[in-house]
Amino acid sequence: MKNSRGFYIGRFQPFHYGHLKALNWILEREREVIIGIGSAQFSHTLRNPFTLSERVEMVWRVVKKRDLTSRVIIMGLPDTDEQHSMWVSLIKSYVPKFDRAYTNDSLSRVLLKEAGIEVSNIPFFERNKYEATKIRRLIIDGGNWEELVPPEVAEVIKEVKGVERLRALAGRDS
Amino acid sequence: MKNSRGFYIGRFQPFHYGHLKALNWILEREREVIIGIGSAQFSHTLRNPFTLSERVEMVWRVVKKRDLTSRVIIMGLPDTDEQHSMWVSLIKSYVPKFDRAYTNDSLSRVLLKEAGIEVSNIPFFERNKYEATKIRRLIIDGGNWEELVPPEVAEVIKEVKGVERLRALAGRDS
Amino acid sequence: MKNSRGFYIGRFQPFHYGHLKALNWILEREREVIIGIGSAQFSHTLRNPFTLSERVEMVWRVVKKRDLTSRVIIMGLPDTDEQHSMWVSLIKSYVPKFDRAYTNDSLSRVLLKEAGIEVSNIPFFERNKYEATKIRRLIIDGGNWEELVPPEVAEVIKEVKGVERLRALAGRDS
Amino acid sequence: MKNSRGFYIGRFQPFHYGHLKALNWILEREREVIIGIGSAQFSHTLRNPFTLSERVEMVWRVVKKRDLTSRVIIMGLPDTDEQHSMWVSLIKSYVPKFDRAYTNDSLSRVLLKEAGIEVSNIPFFERNKYEATKIRRLIIDGGNWEELVPPEVAEVIKEVKGVERLRALAGRDS
Amino acid sequence: MKNSRGFYIGRFQPFHYGHLKALNWILEREREVIIGIGSAQFSHTLRNPFTLSERVEMVWRVVKKRDLTSRVIIMGLPDTDEQHSMWVSLIKSYVPKFDRAYTNDSLSRVLLKEAGIEVSNIPFFERNKYEATKIRRLIIDGGNWEELVPPEVAEVIKEVKGVERLRALAGRDS
Amino acid sequence: MKNSRGFYIGRFQPFHYGHLKALNWILEREREVIIGIGSAQFSHTLRNPFTLSERVEMVWRVVKKRDLTSRVIIMGLPDTDEQHSMWVSLIKSYVPKFDRAYTNDSLSRVLLKEAGIEVSNIPFFERNKYEATKIRRLIIDGGNWEELVPPEVAEVIKEVKGVERLRALAGRDS
Repeated sequence: MKNSRGFYIGRFQPFHYGHLKALNWILEREREVIIGIGSAQFSHTLRNPFTLSERVEMVWRVVKKRDLTSRVIIMGLPDTDEQHSMWVSLIKSYVPKFDRAYTNDSLSRVLLKEAGIEVSNIPFFERNKYEATKIRRLIIDGGNWEELVPPEVAEVIKEVKGVERLRALAGRDS
Repeated sequence: MKNSRGFYIGRFQPFHYGHLKALNWILEREREVIIGIGSAQFSHTLRNPFTLSERVEMVWRVVKKRDLTSRVIIMGLPDTDEQHSMWVSLIKSYVPKFDRAYTNDSLSRVLLKEAGIEVSNIPFFERNKYEATKIRRLIIDGGNWEELVPPEVAEVIKEVKGVERLRALAGRDS
Repeated sequence: MKNSRGFYIGRFQPFHYGHLKALNWILEREREVIIGIGSAQFSHTLRNPFTLSERVEMVWRVVKKRDLTSRVIIMGLPDTDEQHSMWVSLIKSYVPKFDRAYTNDSLSRVLLKEAGIEVSNIPFFERNKYEATKIRRLIIDGGNWEELVPPEVAEVIKEVKGVERLRALAGRDS
Repeated sequence: MKNSRGFYIGRFQPFHYGHLKALNWILEREREVIIGIGSAQFSHTLRNPFTLSERVEMVWRVVKKRDLTSRVIIMGLPDTDEQHSMWVSLIKSYVPKFDRAYTNDSLSRVLLKEAGIEVSNIPFFERNKYEATKIRRLIIDGGNWEELVPPEVAEVIKEVKGVERLRALAGRDS
Repeated sequence: MKNSRGFYIGRFQPFHYGHLKALNWILEREREVIIGIGSAQFSHTLRNPFTLSERVEMVWRVVKKRDLTSRVIIMGLPDTDEQHSMWVSLIKSYVPKFDRAYTNDSLSRVLLKEAGIEVSNIPFFERNKYEATKIRRLIIDGGNWEELVPPEVAEVIKEVKGVERLRALAGRDS
Repeated sequence: MKNSRGFYIGRFQPFHYGHLKALNWILEREREVIIGIGSAQFSHTLRNPFTLSERVEMVWRVVKKRDLTSRVIIMGLPDTDEQHSMWVSLIKSYVPKFDRAYTNDSLSRVLLKEAGIEVSNIPFFERNKYEATKIRRLIIDGGNWEELVPPEVAEVIKEVKGVERLRALAGRDS
């Protein structure tokens, strides 16, 4: 773990407690972690409701609150428009050097491994509870989503009127 | 200054002592600073020799060494392919909210001001000495560039064989 | 209504009587109307069969025939490749200033409202009758589509061999 | 001239009296004219200071004031990023059918002619006086630019604070 | 057939015996054949698993083995991001002149015909047996795919670890 | 040289005797050669007058005439819009595997070497005589350019009316 660096990839729509547990688990294994916020250029859809700006704010507040800023680098990563063979190259030119990538996504795993990069799975932490798709659904339906995300994330979602946005995108204008 | 946030824009090719002095000057005025590394997608030219990866590494080490990680957010910002009217929109969707932008670049100033964003000039700190174009020239010519950048930056430039790269790009292969 | 300007957004694939009724309704409320023809770059699919060229021609003939050219500005608007946060910025840099946007599309409404732009719904005019998806289906199936569009539009569709195109795209080559 | 249509191409940065004279000259030869505003996506540079939005506004007011709206179609045309072989294709899919193109630009003429489109030169009208580069220079230098553009154009330039923009872009902030 | 040239379009994911039979059938009709490998920029999906590099290698080895290199030109063709009206223009600027296009794809046929290009259907050769979607499915499921492609293609698929890639993309990591 | 493959990169605007001599020199060292035609998407400028279509035709005829089709693979390679760090990745996903790259271009050499690819210089063959810039200049000026390119290339240039195109682009319309 001496000076080792992990690269944790996700879309974080939004960043929830499952992500935080994963981050802590990685921080037990690596000295520093680069959090790569993927699909950086997308927002305002049911699947990708939050802008990169908003997602960086979520992660930043979570990390700062827990005094982890000296160990966590936050980066936005645009998608390569379905040109998957270019994605690893984009990672290499955007992201500071790292020792291991952490992701459970099939495509990312294939691409990183073919490029000779070490990839590790992340254990799921109560996946049936902490799952972004489910949380977005709860936000739209007026369910109990707040307890599934760190308080800093709930704060950001409210500040940017994320509940109203998601409900409007779902055609649930009041 | 309570909770205020500044946005400091540059290309940082490379990050030198002039940039560090500017950063410190801004940190006296703002609680937090977002360092926006512009022209993120460019590299391997005489004007933009270093990748975003390498520039993030430079800034990160400088910031970490000086115990500033809890006050500095580092972000890569792609250019908008000459479509300047889209640039502020890109900033807004990529960069967490800020109170003031710091830049001396004419175009950035015009675009930010037209969008109603407060813009502040940055005082120059021995500009004739600390100037990125000049430093890149010194690297190519084998001059005394190391004393013009923080030691962490010199370290990164050597690790990525930046001297060889710049000399080769200038047609000075040995 | 003095000098007020509305912005009416649609894909107009094709421009039908429902659109014309909406346009007239808006013209009762605004001095001028900018008709924004969206998804400008797309064509030759079942959903977007007509090129921008063809759609501008349709709208132009309809508007000219009804002596409305001094009150209607026609504009093509490319999509922003799923980068929705950039769309309002594109609108602002492409479309002359307006006072109110008219659209029933959820996503457009969210984006425009978040940018502080006034948005108005458009009443539906016999929506079960005048609906573009249905009209395109009728064209493919050889149904009675001509009575659902202004005669100028039917004329353009025939001139560009739009019926043949739609049927061929649907795999119904004769 | 019966029902004939011309296609008049320019960047119109800004639209000046030379352009207006050319437009009138074309209108003597064609029933309708499509004004194609090129480099649509560019703005905020010394060469392309005005957005498409602003240029459409200029042309619209000029055309409306002279009661020409029933004979003039205004269109924005994005550049094809140096992929010149695609440009005619873009024209064909964006611009309603026309009989003749009017332009003095070498590249446009080559591309249009190779595609079998008839191209006509436009006579210059006091070119040493009415020339966009010169007018932009006068705006920056505080010279007598207003008499070189129709009053409607001067009005738009002032409304969008175009003088301030150009001077700031030129590094002449006050 | 004297000096005539055909243009045979496909994605060739992978190149199978049905393609080879089609190629031979075209070579009976044309002096030379340009094989256009479409969707050149895509790879690493279940639908487009192989890179252009790998597909060119497949076709090259098949063509070389059969002593056809003097009659076959291989070309990669990027898609035009749903901007179908630009596709024929891309073909014209990328692909050497040809007399006839060979394709059974509805969209390609529409686009080529509207541009005045002669298009010919290709007879299907045991389509229920030789079909790329089915072959990709067999690769994932561990079925008998090898006999459906020329031995040179099977060789390339194994060299690039295509079986492992497809199975991993399908979420069938071992 | 057993089964070895070289990758020869150039823009070939146009393909001249210097290129042919280089190709022959490489063919003495490699079993097969991939000719990568760079800046594939550009054309109709003084620097890049010929489309990829035309350049493939030139190289194909030269190669075919000399019975080299079984040893030469021709490929078009689009530029990566100044995103140089992505270029090697594009090469890898477009170009079949090779053992050595042949180029004298500084930037290409830097990028390929940093990616661990072997790069070889090409000896110049009467460079003051065979040089594309000079040949394009001679075409414009009506000089003796034909003897500097293989007859097949001269043939293509005349078929596509390349002389007229270059002269027109240079503002030398007759």
